[in-house]
Amino acid sequence: MRSALNNRLVLHILSFLLIIEAVALFLSAALAAIYDFDQIDHFSLFKSNGGFWPLIMGASIAFFIGILGWHFTKSVNKSVSKKEGYLIVAFSWVVISFFGSLPFYFSGYFPSFTDAFFETISGFTTTGASILTDIESLPKGLLFWRSFTQWIGGMGIIVLSLAILPLLGIGGMQLFAAESPGPTFDKIHPKVKEIAKRLWGIYVLFTLLEVGLLMAGKMPFFDAICHSFATMATGGFSTQNDSIANYSSYIQYVVIFFMILAGTNFSLHFYLLNGKVKQVWKNEEFRFYLGIIFVATLIISLGLIYNLELNSEKAVRDSLFQVVSIATTTGFVTTDYLVWPSVFWLILFLLFFIGGSAGSTGGGVKVTRILLLIKNSLLELKRLVHPNAIIPVRLNAKPVPQNIVIVVISFFLIYISIFALGVVILAAMGLDFISAIGVSASSLGNIGPAFGSVGPIENYAHLPHIAKWFSSFLMLLGRLELFTILIIFSPTFWRK
Amino acid sequence: MRSALNNRLVLHILSFLLIIEAVALFLSAALAAIYDFDQIDHFSLFKSNGGFWPLIMGASIAFFIGILGWHFTKSVNKSVSKKEGYLIVAFSWVVISFFGSLPFYFSGYFPSFTDAFFETISGFTTTGASILTDIESLPKGLLFWRSFTQWIGGMGIIVLSLAILPLLGIGGMQLFAAESPGPTFDKIHPKVKEIAKRLWGIYVLFTLLEVGLLMAGKMPFFDAICHSFATMATGGFSTQNDSIANYSSYIQYVVIFFMILAGTNFSLHFYLLNGKVKQVWKNEEFRFYLGIIFVATLIISLGLIYNLELNSEKAVRDSLFQVVSIATTTGFVTTDYLVWPSVFWLILFLLFFIGGSAGSTGGGVKVTRILLLIKNSLLELKRLVHPNAIIPVRLNAKPVPQNIVIVVISFFLIYISIFALGVVILAAMGLDFISAIGVSASSLGNIGPAFGSVGPIENYAHLPHIAKWFSSFLMLLGRLELFTILIIFSPTFWRK
Repeated sequence: MRSALNNRLVLHILSFLLIIEAVALFLSAALAAIYDFDQIDHFSLFKSNGGFWPLIMGASIAFFIGILGWHFTKSVNKSVSKKEGYLIVAFSWVVISFFGSLPFYFSGYFPSFTDAFFETISGFTTTGASILTDIESLPKGLLFWRSFTQWIGGMGIIVLSLAILPLLGIGGMQLFAAESPGPTFDKIHPKVKEIAKRLWGIYVLFTLLEVGLLMAGKMPFFDAICHSFATMATGGFSTQNDSIANYSSYIQYVVIFFMILAGTNFSLHFYLLNGKVKQVWKNEEFRFYLGIIFVATLIISLGLIYNLELNSEKAVRDSLFQVVSIATTTGFVTTDYLVWPSVFWLILFLLFFIGGSAGSTGGGVKVTRILLLIKNSLLELKRLVHPNAIIPVRLNAKPVPQNIVIVVISFFLIYISIFALGVVILAAMGLDFISAIGVSASSLGNIGPAFGSVGPIENYAHLPHIAKWFSSFLMLLGRLELFTILIIFSPTFWRK
Repeated sequence: MRSALNNRLVLHILSFLLIIEAVALFLSAALAAIYDFDQIDHFSLFKSNGGFWPLIMGASIAFFIGILGWHFTKSVNKSVSKKEGYLIVAFSWVVISFFGSLPFYFSGYFPSFTDAFFETISGFTTTGASILTDIESLPKGLLFWRSFTQWIGGMGIIVLSLAILPLLGIGGMQLFAAESPGPTFDKIHPKVKEIAKRLWGIYVLFTLLEVGLLMAGKMPFFDAICHSFATMATGGFSTQNDSIANYSSYIQYVVIFFMILAGTNFSLHFYLLNGKVKQVWKNEEFRFYLGIIFVATLIISLGLIYNLELNSEKAVRDSLFQVVSIATTTGFVTTDYLVWPSVFWLILFLLFFIGGSAGSTGGGVKVTRILLLIKNSLLELKRLVHPNAIIPVRLNAKPVPQNIVIVVISFFLIYISIFALGVVILAAMGLDFISAIGVSASSLGNIGPAFGSVGPIENYAHLPHIAKWFSSFLMLLGRLELFTILIIFSPTFWRK
């Protein structure tokens, strides 16, 4: 490892991402020009009710600064070490969220910059927590950009979790790599490019498929594309105030299906599309993921039929939808689960701490890690009975090295500790106990809806500003697998 | 390991413990005869208001069955393997609690057998959760037995955690052994006897000291001895309806001091009494334990002065008392902490998951384990920066082997998982969310007071019967370091 940090390279790559973001913003502005044409006031940038001018302004600023940064760091030393990798990952989400929030801020639909930033980072981290009290009043251009942030975030996450983090060795991610990590980090560029091409193809394909199936259920094109963006990114932003609640049961089942796909490891989709069905079905994480969804849905739907006397199709659909929405960390809502008897939303709450599969767009701890933890815990009992035998944890029939087991368990521990500290800090900021629990778990797990005053039919608007910033920080921490952010705060990182 | 379980030996030892319990019950009856003399109805066993006859009956039954069991298993093969060790540990607390609850049941002061059993196992596990709504109405004999169960439980725990569990290799307890474990489990008998003699001496000494100091503060002899029993066992049963709240601040400080002693590793007391002050002060667990108490007290007392405008001596005393009471898992109460702003009782709630030091009478996860977890988590960041270096966790300057790190982290994980499942199960039994959280954490951590409807000035009387049984099970699990109980439910344990 070289001694000096290559700051220029970090800036170079961040500038590049900013230019990409500017292109996405111009695209949204184009859409605003089509949909909100009559709202565009051609003589005043700031008094317009539409999203066009704010988007154009945001795009221009991002583009200008991106080009400047790109130009001044052009003569860069291209060799990259792990340290630069961490910095790029950590800062890209922050920088992109900052510039992405400008159109929201300029538009006047958001009461403060804090709110605009919260909504944007909630989008890019694919969380889906919203401060909007009347989503439907927003011009289409802004709504599109809002959903688009999630889709872009999801793209970033797939590459991050299947190509970049395994090379950085974050939180046991080596285990879930799309490819076995190369010998050095320097070779990352071509590998990342190749994996990205392959997996983004699947991501785009599924998104288009969902758009088609939603439109077949008579959802308008605009809403179909926004909801598909939010589904495939496991984000959860809707264009409707009632999320998915007022759509037909056909549409709800379509969304359920694609949420499940989005919460699955994208490497498995790649195998499946190449006809390797056996490899998919044999994958322990995938089976466990489906098992969790099945068992939780079974318990809750039986409970709803018995306790609330719902008819059984509605009970199964409601519980399946909520279970899948939380398990995949999407956060769409079809019913207010807080009116269920507490034991049933407590089961949902347990799902807050599992999350999607590794290599999916889902957040949270990740199914593989939980599976590894459970397996190791059961083996501890076996190890007590046979103290002299060496009994390794096996995942997909391969023994997992002890140091990786420690990394994975530590990840979970740090996750839980940050959650608990988060609750205390949010309570100190004035949140009641249940809301503090909800915001901490939901932000860290990139889910969106929570409990108490931030329940599924509520929003984050009423939180104090400082709590919105803290919640944003938790989203970032959770989305970037904790270590990427924490390491920057550690003294050893900056030493030498 | 031999193939057949030596059931006779298990029964032999349980019978022996039963005889000891009978002696303790006769002692309580003698005390009842002195204190409750005028309440004893000499002609009716069942209509008496005193505790004498119920205690005599309970003692006789325990004695009779103990002697019978002892006699019929006399010709026992004395060689003991780990499996018998587990069974003896797991069943002794259950058997002793069952027979110990008979006097309560016979007395008529307890509404049902469930309640009598709950109170007794809460005593023997040194939890201190009570179903009594008017403690002061109980005859002195029964109150004495109630406190006595805690003191006996504490005696059992000291030997269990410093001599037996390390030999069984439970939850990383090897690390905290009073002696390095011998080569085989067969040699356990003389070693346990020697450690017990040494540590029980200290336990008795501290108890007598506290009795003296409490009486110096004008507490009557009977209450002084009951409170000292409950303090040294980190139990928390009081003879007063208001726990320690109505006593003088001198008495409260005395109780604080002895709670701190009771929550400290008893090996350290042994070192201290032998003049090895340096060894005590250098002990990392001890420093961390005091550090936690100091920091939590500082935050809460400043918060109380600022928020509730208490005078500073009262604020410091109240917060120190509650912090120490929870941190050591005693559960005495001087103030209703639920009226504090939620962030302050949330800090107390974090302490629910730390517990006393290893080798103390305190329950919970144990300070050393938490210390090891924190150290390992911080090292994970260092390991990411230096991926090729081998960086072991060090405790008291000694590197901790990887497999022990895994055991300790797994212990915490299983602890947290049982807590979370416990919340869901208690909610399914009809408890509200906050009470379910409280009962689960408090039972598992052997603390006593909790939150919601089982807050510090409430009691467990109103819980449904099934929740009382479940809470009893959690107390047992937590007290016996999880694995001792869980292993009995594992199929590998019974195989072959």
